[in-house]
Amino acid sequence: MPGQGILSDLRIVEASAFVAAPLGGLTLAQMGADVIRIDPLGGGLDFDRWPMSPDDASLFWCGLNKAKRSVALNLADPEGREIAMSLISAPGEGAGLFVTNFPPRGWLDYDKLKARRADLIQLTLQGDHKGGSAVDYTVNARVGIPYVTGPVGYEAPVNHVLPAWDVATGHLVATGLLAAERHRSRTGQGQHVKLALEDVALSVMAHLGFIAEAQLGCARGRYGNDLFGAFGRDFVCSDGRRVIAIGLTLKQWNSLVEATGLAQAIDAIGARRGLDLVKEGDRFLARRELGTVIGDWIAARPFADVAASFDRAGVCWAPYQTIDELVGVDPACSVDNPLFDSVDQSGVGRVLVPRSALRFEAFEARAPGTAPALGEHTEAVLGEILGIDGAGYGRLCDRGVVCSPKRR
Amino acid sequence: MPGQGILSDLRIVEASAFVAAPLGGLTLAQMGADVIRIDPLGGGLDFDRWPMSPDDASLFWCGLNKAKRSVALNLADPEGREIAMSLISAPGEGAGLFVTNFPPRGWLDYDKLKARRADLIQLTLQGDHKGGSAVDYTVNARVGIPYVTGPVGYEAPVNHVLPAWDVATGHLVATGLLAAERHRSRTGQGQHVKLALEDVALSVMAHLGFIAEAQLGCARGRYGNDLFGAFGRDFVCSDGRRVIAIGLTLKQWNSLVEATGLAQAIDAIGARRGLDLVKEGDRFLARRELGTVIGDWIAARPFADVAASFDRAGVCWAPYQTIDELVGVDPACSVDNPLFDSVDQSGVGRVLVPRSALRFEAFEARAPGTAPALGEHTEAVLGEILGIDGAGYGRLCDRGVVCSPKRR
Repeated sequence: MPGQGILSDLRIVEASAFVAAPLGGLTLAQMGADVIRIDPLGGGLDFDRWPMSPDDASLFWCGLNKAKRSVALNLADPEGREIAMSLISAPGEGAGLFVTNFPPRGWLDYDKLKARRADLIQLTLQGDHKGGSAVDYTVNARVGIPYVTGPVGYEAPVNHVLPAWDVATGHLVATGLLAAERHRSRTGQGQHVKLALEDVALSVMAHLGFIAEAQLGCARGRYGNDLFGAFGRDFVCSDGRRVIAIGLTLKQWNSLVEATGLAQAIDAIGARRGLDLVKEGDRFLARRELGTVIGDWIAARPFADVAASFDRAGVCWAPYQTIDELVGVDPACSVDNPLFDSVDQSGVGRVLVPRSALRFEAFEARAPGTAPALGEHTEAVLGEILGIDGAGYGRLCDRGVVCSPKRR
Repeated sequence: MPGQGILSDLRIVEASAFVAAPLGGLTLAQMGADVIRIDPLGGGLDFDRWPMSPDDASLFWCGLNKAKRSVALNLADPEGREIAMSLISAPGEGAGLFVTNFPPRGWLDYDKLKARRADLIQLTLQGDHKGGSAVDYTVNARVGIPYVTGPVGYEAPVNHVLPAWDVATGHLVATGLLAAERHRSRTGQGQHVKLALEDVALSVMAHLGFIAEAQLGCARGRYGNDLFGAFGRDFVCSDGRRVIAIGLTLKQWNSLVEATGLAQAIDAIGARRGLDLVKEGDRFLARRELGTVIGDWIAARPFADVAASFDRAGVCWAPYQTIDELVGVDPACSVDNPLFDSVDQSGVGRVLVPRSALRFEAFEARAPGTAPALGEHTEAVLGEILGIDGAGYGRLCDRGVVCSPKRR
């Protein structure tokens, strides 16, 4: 799907499953790169990943593979693997980029591929730095986040629902490929780039101070919905609707005090506790008392009144929404937000589909793209990149190297 | 801090606070770019962000600003702002890159900066696509994740502790800057790149299928610690230690069945429920019964036995660890993992500091870098980039344009 876009001269081959590697490819595809995903006939490990549409299409797969081209090959057949290797190592200045989260063996082996194209860039996503396997859920359990998430006093771990480490890693895959391609365009040198999901999680835990905190002997506790180190939490309005209000910066805090008109009560809390509430950390220390007076104020008012007061004073706040509410009533999650198009996705129907969140002013906004049917582009890609003509393709089909019997 | 590294010919000026924009800069700095963070004298909004060290250094700030150079200016003074604009727009092929999460007004205004350097690349991180403000916590409340996180039957929202949207956005900042610089190096054209935190969250919610799922009328429920759409959850061993075990792919599932020796009981569940447990979705539908038999097996064994059985069969699993356990006993979170160095960070002490998780084979691993003292590099940077000599710097100091009185 080459065309307009800041990366439209790049071609990336992807052999992947699940979130991180496909999200890396998606990120580049939505910026205009020609991303060709290679799958086995019948689909890879993530082809039926839930959620599914009533017509049995994976909303997950469609979401993570839009704007890509799909090549399906019989990878159990040496001829299928040969074609895959030829696609990965095909010539072209903006080509020769490969991303995978499978073990880099067999047809995915960097050295073998490099023998075909010396300046190949391969990014291999691993579970851990030794090449062992790990998934978002196991990494999250290891790094300790589930024990600091959830209600105070709750004993069990709380898993995250958003695969945050996968998402963080997916975006870093895109960064890594662009950096390596930048280097190659200057020096002619390709390379193998490795990235471990576990390392991404560990490095972020360190960047945010969690690891140093524990090393200094005061590992993070479980603070429920309280924002650590400042003021911020959830509240319930008189009509049962919930809001989050934040006083992280002093400006945010002053807005919250102004909106609620509670300056006097809040000053009294500071005086009683001997805390200087101008300091964000002191607001955290006084979070219970502050939460009580602000919570009482909010609990006495319906959502609409709270929202109006908060907006008037410029409070940093938001309603808690269910995903249904997000989709049903939030204008940011609609075509009113230029992020979204309403797109007819085969097997799914008309749904909101986002384009790249990165808006490059020098380029028109691109269509977000739809997910391909499995193997939709096999014939075209084999023709275009490997020069396989219609007759040649027919013979591959007859030998079962291409053309999924399941999905024809 | 220029030197060896895949991006060592790039220079990025950063005016930022909190997580996403500083993480974008950090990501590039750890790949070798010279990242110069400009702060007001005395520090920006995030300079005292918790967690803090006993010596009153922000572990958060140190974590997110390592490997950068620090310039501190009196930005309330027109001369300070003039210096900031000169630094941002200074010439040089790899320079003229600017990232900010502040409103792009005044000295941060793209048009004013572009008038000084026509090919400037500015990436402005916004709260929402209209330029409004939003933070990770408010965005998360809006998109619905807190209502699907946490124990089944729990009524209130559960905030995430990891600022996942900030982290995802920070890595995308790095991607966006590299893509824009790639375009500039080919065309000479700079541009203003915009990225909204809210758009990143909305797009990921769509990529993962959450939004389409709700549009199709079956928004995600709250499934506690159960992995949606397949099998995976937390378990308690006989000694109270907890583990997560995953059967997402068929291979993972078969390993789990093999490790526990429960094939017969599990087949009986499939038969009784009329489900084909070879299908991941059917494992999700049978998750309660499967969880009970597997949970009973695990509950009858101490952690060491469970771990040994799981490892023998190649199960996808992990222990749940507290952050203290991660730091205290996990070899992945130690200098045994080449990700980490033990580094003496001023104001903090000796702590584990990660280098870039991206390993570029063509380059030696770089030192992770330490965080600068505030304004540590002001004199050097003003000399090197603007040609301000010692006498000129002294005059700026006398006029209070540089040299924080607080931190000298």
